[in-house]
Amino acid sequence: MSDFEYDLFVIGGGSGGVRAARLAAGLGKKVAIAEEYRFGGTCVIRGCVPKKLFVYASQYSEHFEDARGFGWTVGASSFDWPTLIANKDREIDRLEGLYRHGLENAGAEIIASRAELTGPHSVLIKSTGKTITAEHILIAVGGTPNPHASLPGHELCISSNEAFHLETLPEAIVIAGGGYIAVEFANIFHGMGVDTTLIYRGKEILSRFDQDMRRGLHAAMEEKGIRILCHEIFEKIERGADGRLLAHTSAGKTLVTDQVMLALGRDPNTDSLGLKAAGVETGQKGEIKVDEFSRTNVESIYAVGDVTDRVQLTPVAIHEAMCLIDTLYRDNPSSPDHDLIPTAVFSQPEIGTVGLSEEAAAKKYDELEIYRAEFRPMKATLSGRSEKTIMKMIVNAADRKVLGLHILGHEAGEMAQTLGIALKAGCTKDDFDRTMAVHPTASEELVTMYKPSYLVKAGERV
Amino acid sequence: MSDFEYDLFVIGGGSGGVRAARLAAGLGKKVAIAEEYRFGGTCVIRGCVPKKLFVYASQYSEHFEDARGFGWTVGASSFDWPTLIANKDREIDRLEGLYRHGLENAGAEIIASRAELTGPHSVLIKSTGKTITAEHILIAVGGTPNPHASLPGHELCISSNEAFHLETLPEAIVIAGGGYIAVEFANIFHGMGVDTTLIYRGKEILSRFDQDMRRGLHAAMEEKGIRILCHEIFEKIERGADGRLLAHTSAGKTLVTDQVMLALGRDPNTDSLGLKAAGVETGQKGEIKVDEFSRTNVESIYAVGDVTDRVQLTPVAIHEAMCLIDTLYRDNPSSPDHDLIPTAVFSQPEIGTVGLSEEAAAKKYDELEIYRAEFRPMKATLSGRSEKTIMKMIVNAADRKVLGLHILGHEAGEMAQTLGIALKAGCTKDDFDRTMAVHPTASEELVTMYKPSYLVKAGERV
Repeated sequence: MSDFEYDLFVIGGGSGGVRAARLAAGLGKKVAIAEEYRFGGTCVIRGCVPKKLFVYASQYSEHFEDARGFGWTVGASSFDWPTLIANKDREIDRLEGLYRHGLENAGAEIIASRAELTGPHSVLIKSTGKTITAEHILIAVGGTPNPHASLPGHELCISSNEAFHLETLPEAIVIAGGGYIAVEFANIFHGMGVDTTLIYRGKEILSRFDQDMRRGLHAAMEEKGIRILCHEIFEKIERGADGRLLAHTSAGKTLVTDQVMLALGRDPNTDSLGLKAAGVETGQKGEIKVDEFSRTNVESIYAVGDVTDRVQLTPVAIHEAMCLIDTLYRDNPSSPDHDLIPTAVFSQPEIGTVGLSEEAAAKKYDELEIYRAEFRPMKATLSGRSEKTIMKMIVNAADRKVLGLHILGHEAGEMAQTLGIALKAGCTKDDFDRTMAVHPTASEELVTMYKPSYLVKAGERV
Repeated sequence: MSDFEYDLFVIGGGSGGVRAARLAAGLGKKVAIAEEYRFGGTCVIRGCVPKKLFVYASQYSEHFEDARGFGWTVGASSFDWPTLIANKDREIDRLEGLYRHGLENAGAEIIASRAELTGPHSVLIKSTGKTITAEHILIAVGGTPNPHASLPGHELCISSNEAFHLETLPEAIVIAGGGYIAVEFANIFHGMGVDTTLIYRGKEILSRFDQDMRRGLHAAMEEKGIRILCHEIFEKIERGADGRLLAHTSAGKTLVTDQVMLALGRDPNTDSLGLKAAGVETGQKGEIKVDEFSRTNVESIYAVGDVTDRVQLTPVAIHEAMCLIDTLYRDNPSSPDHDLIPTAVFSQPEIGTVGLSEEAAAKKYDELEIYRAEFRPMKATLSGRSEKTIMKMIVNAADRKVLGLHILGHEAGEMAQTLGIALKAGCTKDDFDRTMAVHPTASEELVTMYKPSYLVKAGERV
């Protein structure tokens, strides 16, 4: 045992912090983890998990409609938001309990308090005023929605945090942003019957995704009845005489609505964390700067997850935490691998993607083969729903390696996960061609793309 | 041009025959294709496609129930079978039209008639009585449900063929068989509100599948309310005085029901095909024996698809047809690859599988690592539905190669397709481990299986 009270002190009980604390404690290290609110972090408490439960909830209106084409007559349906919230909260409570139990079972000490750094090896426990010492400190405090403080009336707006706890479902909502959070919530609210508008300053939603995904989802959302305003931003939000909100836009429009939700990126949670006292360097957005082993400029202090603003995803935070434990306690220096991360947007339809977009690949490779399929999903043939599945494969012509896969359609998230394995293993188009189709599935399209739809040479489609 | 009227004469307008005819015609060959009924074959007309549409239809009853936990109140629903049949038939008509158009556009001659071989190069067109000659003849006539002619009362039973066209939905049905067709239809009818019983002579449904899949699906089906009788067969079927059917079983039970469906395997369609006249050899089940290039013992006659009883799957028939065209007309002798074929059972939940079961792998390899996860799908946490997803990975301990993957759960068919690519490429467990999770998905479980659940050494679990 060293001269410190703890081997490892973790600040923040989200996915990254909990995993690190649990693993270190499981290895016999003396570990404490401080969390000021609830265990589970953004993912469990106000992110991935409740979001996906909302997605499920919002899909039933389409199920009821689609059933008709299959011979069903469905009586009038209604949606009760407070029931969903209560049921969701019960599930989140259960999950939080699992996180706690995991920590306790592994032998980590749980400290229900905010904690702030006071030096390279010391942390102040705010609830007790006591300062403890630790050989290593891990900062895993995550991020929080950017409040867009410069927008007049921003205090009238909600973020995704509040969206999970609204007392009533609004009749109308305007969501600002073009990222996956904005897009997912637009689909969620629309599916629950809310009049939904998305407003985004950029040319097209979901920047950095493949163009076909961006345009395809945009069209699908408009087809459903979601209004999308691109190249437009809020200038001011105010409350009208009738209590509703007036959102004034840069195009001179005034949108009258019940809620305005800002989904304009997320900021690292580094305010009042004592970073200065400890001498920890941060970057432009306030993110903690770390090296390839997640170490800050202070030798004893590490950071993982959203607070480092590398890749803001739960599995990445967990991976970074696991690498850190290998590095610190298993004599196996491991730097997180941020390459070829498959991801999903739980829009409706979903986007699943892994690897390079056509645009990014065109900048890196001399010649690409682009395989692209657009088809009506089988279910839609009877439901009559106007929807398209788009599948796109980017192949390096030189060595046939599959550089990117992009899917817009049902269960695209599951496909991104399983296809991610093939891409991570460096599979080629020939590996896809050799695979027998499973019929009838949507993804069989991926193994029956016999000819390129077009080529891209020196950055140009030919 | 040779001395024959056609370069290629295809008998049978199913998936294999149509693909071969279309490709050959597209290469400028003189091609005719004879079909006595409708184009599309088992898959389109009375198999995969209408079956999957039925699966969708049968899932809505659970959607309506599940919606409650997500805050929905759903009015009374009812299901109208004739509406489903009519809508399904319209879609099948559309698809048949596509098959026809594909053939016509490629320049193949369509002959709406039964055709029978009269010699190594000659075929009798039954509708006209004319005999034509061809350099090569392809037999792609498929298979048909085994009628179980030795069962007293078998003429009172239906097969899957009739199930697609029943005038009324029965109140109760008993399905005999333990294969995927029996299992899929049991789930379909149950989901439509039919009192459903499955009777199977074997110890457990779905022989040759991994035991966990077999037991897991069995339990899930019983949980839903489907009665499953194993180790039991029909002894006699008769019609009772009230018009209902009485199915007497080997265990001395009498099941009173409205329909009895036999799903006891399928026989090759080789009766009255003129095989003897042409000198074509068949096997024990009547299947046409072919070599590795799909050639029969008669040099000019080939066969692909179900009639050869190799692997009875649509994509396999298509693959065999494509290989044949490469062999005959592209100077590229290609033998079909029947190894590592991913498949799905569209039961509810689905099974998706590729590679070896634990049982089969245990016989072939000295040491296996078995990774197994059983969990409640996320949706079920709020729907309250009692259901389990099971994922199982079979790894060869010696070289870490993934030998088999077996999934019971939603969208397992899509996962089998996409995971099939990784297995076909020879991916190892390390490739899975290197892949980042996509959260929240079901399949992320496959890339976060850190430790084997157990090992199998010399065939024994340890």
